[in-house]
Amino acid sequence: MRIEVICTGDEVLTGKTVNTNFSRLSRRLTELGLPVVRETTVGDDRAELRAAFDAAAGRADAVIVNGGLGPTVDDLSQEVAAEAAGVALGLRPEWLENIRDFYRRRNREMPPNNRKQAMLPEGAELIDNPVGTACGFAVDIGAARFFFTPGVPSELDVMTEQQLIPRLRAMSGIDAVMHLKRFHSFGIGESRADHLLDGIEAMDGQGRVKLGFQSHYPQLETKLAVAAPTTGAAEALLEPIAAEVRARLGNFIVAEDDGTLEGAVLERLRALGGSLSTAEAGSQGGLGARLAAADEEGGVFLRASSGNAAAAVARPLGLPDDASPVELAEGVRRADGATHGLAATVDPGTGEVHVALAGPDGGFERRALLIGGARRARHGGVELALDCLRRSLAGAPVDQKIDFEKA
Amino acid sequence: MRIEVICTGDEVLTGKTVNTNFSRLSRRLTELGLPVVRETTVGDDRAELRAAFDAAAGRADAVIVNGGLGPTVDDLSQEVAAEAAGVALGLRPEWLENIRDFYRRRNREMPPNNRKQAMLPEGAELIDNPVGTACGFAVDIGAARFFFTPGVPSELDVMTEQQLIPRLRAMSGIDAVMHLKRFHSFGIGESRADHLLDGIEAMDGQGRVKLGFQSHYPQLETKLAVAAPTTGAAEALLEPIAAEVRARLGNFIVAEDDGTLEGAVLERLRALGGSLSTAEAGSQGGLGARLAAADEEGGVFLRASSGNAAAAVARPLGLPDDASPVELAEGVRRADGATHGLAATVDPGTGEVHVALAGPDGGFERRALLIGGARRARHGGVELALDCLRRSLAGAPVDQKIDFEKA
Repeated sequence: MRIEVICTGDEVLTGKTVNTNFSRLSRRLTELGLPVVRETTVGDDRAELRAAFDAAAGRADAVIVNGGLGPTVDDLSQEVAAEAAGVALGLRPEWLENIRDFYRRRNREMPPNNRKQAMLPEGAELIDNPVGTACGFAVDIGAARFFFTPGVPSELDVMTEQQLIPRLRAMSGIDAVMHLKRFHSFGIGESRADHLLDGIEAMDGQGRVKLGFQSHYPQLETKLAVAAPTTGAAEALLEPIAAEVRARLGNFIVAEDDGTLEGAVLERLRALGGSLSTAEAGSQGGLGARLAAADEEGGVFLRASSGNAAAAVARPLGLPDDASPVELAEGVRRADGATHGLAATVDPGTGEVHVALAGPDGGFERRALLIGGARRARHGGVELALDCLRRSLAGAPVDQKIDFEKA
Repeated sequence: MRIEVICTGDEVLTGKTVNTNFSRLSRRLTELGLPVVRETTVGDDRAELRAAFDAAAGRADAVIVNGGLGPTVDDLSQEVAAEAAGVALGLRPEWLENIRDFYRRRNREMPPNNRKQAMLPEGAELIDNPVGTACGFAVDIGAARFFFTPGVPSELDVMTEQQLIPRLRAMSGIDAVMHLKRFHSFGIGESRADHLLDGIEAMDGQGRVKLGFQSHYPQLETKLAVAAPTTGAAEALLEPIAAEVRARLGNFIVAEDDGTLEGAVLERLRALGGSLSTAEAGSQGGLGARLAAADEEGGVFLRASSGNAAAAVARPLGLPDDASPVELAEGVRRADGATHGLAATVDPGTGEVHVALAGPDGGFERRALLIGGARRARHGGVELALDCLRRSLAGAPVDQKIDFEKA
């Protein structure tokens, strides 16, 4: 089954809004073995939208259209869908009532322009949107089934799970399972990983395993993809190959599959009954933000103290303005009563990063001069701090050279 | 001139990578009056890539292709470009030497697979990439000029500015200036703003002004676009209409054009000779991160202290575990010697937000129960805290009801 996606809206086409709707939707469908083959973005323009609909109708079995269902005049999806399907637009009283309810529950009057959201192509299948006022719907255009979804991310997500996936699965009738094994590494670039993993695909004599990389600085994701009749068969096929990847990439692997570096650190600390506070300068609070977001179970990550200047972080700890990262790590550990204090100072101008840990059994220091601009220094510095802590907790060397630092 | 963009790569098509390359590129071209009319994403698939090239070649004047120039086997752009242009691939020794230099400067040997990056369609115009090993190039396919750019964001950005823009400008020969006036507001949704601004476009009798919205929670962007012969003419046309927008949206406007809410707050504090530290719980450090990133001139934002639990933030300030936001604001102000202390506690589960300011002339408190899930509570809570501070510094009411809170 060929699935295409069409995104519409001047805000997406002109780049004002980053198209995260498409990435979330496509990721989810790919996971389920319903890969998207092409994505097209057009603006709030009748002729472009119509041309995109007609072209996709001639190629695809299923087309998901995202956006253009809003209440304002530049939202054109219903109108153009009706034109392309060769039918008229008509009011759906049941959806108008839904919109009125939506506002009533918020103790507000429905603004008059929201009425437009209840106008659908005649004969369209209504697709429920339980969290918003935009009405989803499906119509046939040419030989393809078109599914129309709202541009508001939370509304799209609910409709994808509850409405789109069951319909696409029923249409596809595919049995094969797509299995993906992922390794997240820090410290090596794509070229080097590709070189280190030379010959990995050939380990399966039948060519069923595909190796791929995705570089998102400072991490590299290494992926093994396989299609097999069952999940068990896919896992059995991948197991020896995954073991070989682990052996070759070694200490650079920070997590696998849905795991994260910060998650691995927190899990290890939790197992040790530990707790962690951080002090950081120059990294815009990135270290604390990563740990706070990952500590959903709570109680391991205590607090982050961050500023653009190290002196502003040092003073409330009773330390001198020129306190070293070692002193900051020890200071925040003591002030918070944490078992571990992690400090990182980043100079976004020079790329100089200085990391220090204070723990119950002593600590470490690690310095690096990162390659690239300010953004890379900040992201790389935060990553290096987390990775040094991971290595320290795992008994691995914290001073292994990485590809992103000056020799 | 019709400009299209084609993005290639399984990582973008499958949604593993969010397509920020496209949004940055399109935003930049739109600003310069070189709008992109359509964007197409295809995977690392020879047939799909070829079909996308051929279709765009039949419609567009200029096509920018992004991605597929890497050293690995799944990078297909050069090969497919050569096929579509009907020429062979050939080694460009001058670029191979560039790649070798790139590695030499980093004291490393060039991995053998990088040689592939110096293979270009015969007759292609080489487009320099001063920061990476992927070689940009341009070829004609059909009646369109195709520009090939690397998928690494920093490399794309440099090439866009130094290489693409001059070439596209020369091709377009357009004289008219596109002028955009933007207002950033917090607290009102798109429907309400559309309603408040009813009739704004008609203020220009000749229909030259276009009103648009872009909602990115918790902010709403209101845009007035106009095309005029000169920047001065555009500004003169927009001035009375912009004044009317300001009057109608009132205190909800937090910044205009490239200004930001946090930038406005820091600017005002700087003018007062003030300084600011923050204490936050439940917001994953979002308040501190926003202020740190905006305080490029430095010295106004001192420090952020953040944790998932308010108690972890209270303790190092010598406060009891159940300290109120007012006490946290006063505590962090005192500990850091700041003129202003801003505190925010967010309960991502309930949406309850509690903001407090301690300043030289007293302070304020603001409570709200935000609508939506955990992510909205965090983003909305951070925004509310910053907006209350902005309002307080501007002498505007801090307790004006917003659309995102329960009545």
